[in-house]
Amino acid sequence: MDERAPVPPTSGEVQIEVAYTGICGTDLHILHGTMDHRVQIPQTIGHEMSGHVVAVGPDVADLVIGTPVTVMPLRWCGACPACDAGHHHICHRLNFIGIDSVGAMQQRWTVPAEVVVPLPADLPLTHGALVEPTAVAVHDVRRADLCAGEKAIVIGGGPVGVLIALVARSIQAEVVLVEIDPHRRAIADRLGIRTLNPAHDDLAGHVRAWTGDAGVAVAFEVSGSATAIATAVELLAVRGRLVVVGIHSQPRELDVFRFFWRELTMVGARVYRRADYDTAIKLLRTGQVGAETLITHIEPLTNAAAAFDALRGGGNVMKVLIDCQETS
Amino acid sequence: MDERAPVPPTSGEVQIEVAYTGICGTDLHILHGTMDHRVQIPQTIGHEMSGHVVAVGPDVADLVIGTPVTVMPLRWCGACPACDAGHHHICHRLNFIGIDSVGAMQQRWTVPAEVVVPLPADLPLTHGALVEPTAVAVHDVRRADLCAGEKAIVIGGGPVGVLIALVARSIQAEVVLVEIDPHRRAIADRLGIRTLNPAHDDLAGHVRAWTGDAGVAVAFEVSGSATAIATAVELLAVRGRLVVVGIHSQPRELDVFRFFWRELTMVGARVYRRADYDTAIKLLRTGQVGAETLITHIEPLTNAAAAFDALRGGGNVMKVLIDCQETS
Repeated sequence: MDERAPVPPTSGEVQIEVAYTGICGTDLHILHGTMDHRVQIPQTIGHEMSGHVVAVGPDVADLVIGTPVTVMPLRWCGACPACDAGHHHICHRLNFIGIDSVGAMQQRWTVPAEVVVPLPADLPLTHGALVEPTAVAVHDVRRADLCAGEKAIVIGGGPVGVLIALVARSIQAEVVLVEIDPHRRAIADRLGIRTLNPAHDDLAGHVRAWTGDAGVAVAFEVSGSATAIATAVELLAVRGRLVVVGIHSQPRELDVFRFFWRELTMVGARVYRRADYDTAIKLLRTGQVGAETLITHIEPLTNAAAAFDALRGGGNVMKVLIDCQETS
Repeated sequence: MDERAPVPPTSGEVQIEVAYTGICGTDLHILHGTMDHRVQIPQTIGHEMSGHVVAVGPDVADLVIGTPVTVMPLRWCGACPACDAGHHHICHRLNFIGIDSVGAMQQRWTVPAEVVVPLPADLPLTHGALVEPTAVAVHDVRRADLCAGEKAIVIGGGPVGVLIALVARSIQAEVVLVEIDPHRRAIADRLGIRTLNPAHDDLAGHVRAWTGDAGVAVAFEVSGSATAIATAVELLAVRGRLVVVGIHSQPRELDVFRFFWRELTMVGARVYRRADYDTAIKLLRTGQVGAETLITHIEPLTNAAAAFDALRGGGNVMKVLIDCQETS
């Protein structure tokens, strides 16, 4: 056991030597101050991660030192109406570790044993850091009830949007990604995802031609834009499903009559359940997620500020990992 | 066979001697001119009805003269993307008989055999005229995935709203009806439905107390009002379902973030499928719909204009039937 471990794990806790921590859009929101109310400054953030168990507290019987792991960073109260109904992942008092409490962007991270998820020994730890965002995408696709052969559109081609497209493809759905940024479209192209540019392409015309005037079975709204969600409603087939993944900070004007007329469905999709983690791990292990292409930057912890700057600046950036390993 | 039959049924058609035709909200919209584009004036309207078969055309083998019947007034094209996907009831080119073509508010009505639905011999024909709106309510409750023991709110206490409350109760859901009109609330009271008045009652407080801070599992929006649909979103529990039944002629501002945060669902529900008719007939036959209380007025065909006026005027009116039978 490393003698420099800052906080030894107590009963029910596990200490992880962090290998990689991904930067997520929510982390950027926190840094930009738009979600400040959820974070006590200064606080270590980070919730997409991989590492190894380096110490276990008393009463932790099922985790062995040296096991490669990630974390499903949700702690629920077990007593609210959401928990009572079995929807623990959207607990009324959810503690999202890394946002509502201390996160993974550090060398050693002590967490409750119940949030630790073992990783396969043959999964590179860089890929292991993608389990959490991949589980988001798996959950989104599950909420859509997307089936093999159905046609889906994803609006917004950041990491979660691209992951949704990849997960949708893994279940043999047909998918088109809508993204305005040429760098992001280029990365999606490299992953074999068909893309459209909403600034130049006639989305409605493309969807009509692609679907034989039916419209798409599913639209994933991942951009958070008012125009995008209104467009998504227009593109849906009868009984189509709109999945709300993006953060809409303002109320949005929606064509409710069209929901009635076409019997559309809109569903919100937030975080994930444990089964989504298991599926995400399988998809990463079998290479269906294209982790090598998605991870565009790996920066040392000492350079974290520059990594955030790169993300803010746009450019040829998709998923940025912070390498938290000791450089000795 | 009555010699005055104006149009004898041709191949595949059935002539019905109409007993009762209900007036529906859509009929009022047509009379007020807001749906004029769907109706060629002058046209006979009416699509909630009961009667007897009085003549059958050649090739109609399964309907016997004298059979009590109602009509499921939908004709689909069988070739559009909606039909291809099995959603015939929301066919892209749906012909809604009584709106898009000639309706039942007459003594003899000739319709295609495939839209005729036999009624049980022991069902009063006044009640038979309620099969269509009851099927609407059955379809709405089915779209909600409402389960026994779940709590639901219905916003809007006209005939469809009250029928939704009754259908919800028939599957052992708990239901509260929100309606501003005291006459309508009084009719719901007589049917044993708990009501709230949104002008005076604290809806949010009532729902919190009723559901132990959870919110309702299902909200049926039957009013078409912007305030009502926004309120419905606020009242839903995590994973709650909002069913859009009312006509929203303008886009509505919705709290899309709340759909994300609580993983809510909004579904549109339009007309019905044949299974909904079968369920509606069972509910009417077993008295679970309270037809005697719902039918507040029966007016002769010669007095149809006065019946429409009564509905427009509000007052102690719920479901108005036109008696189309010959008075000889």
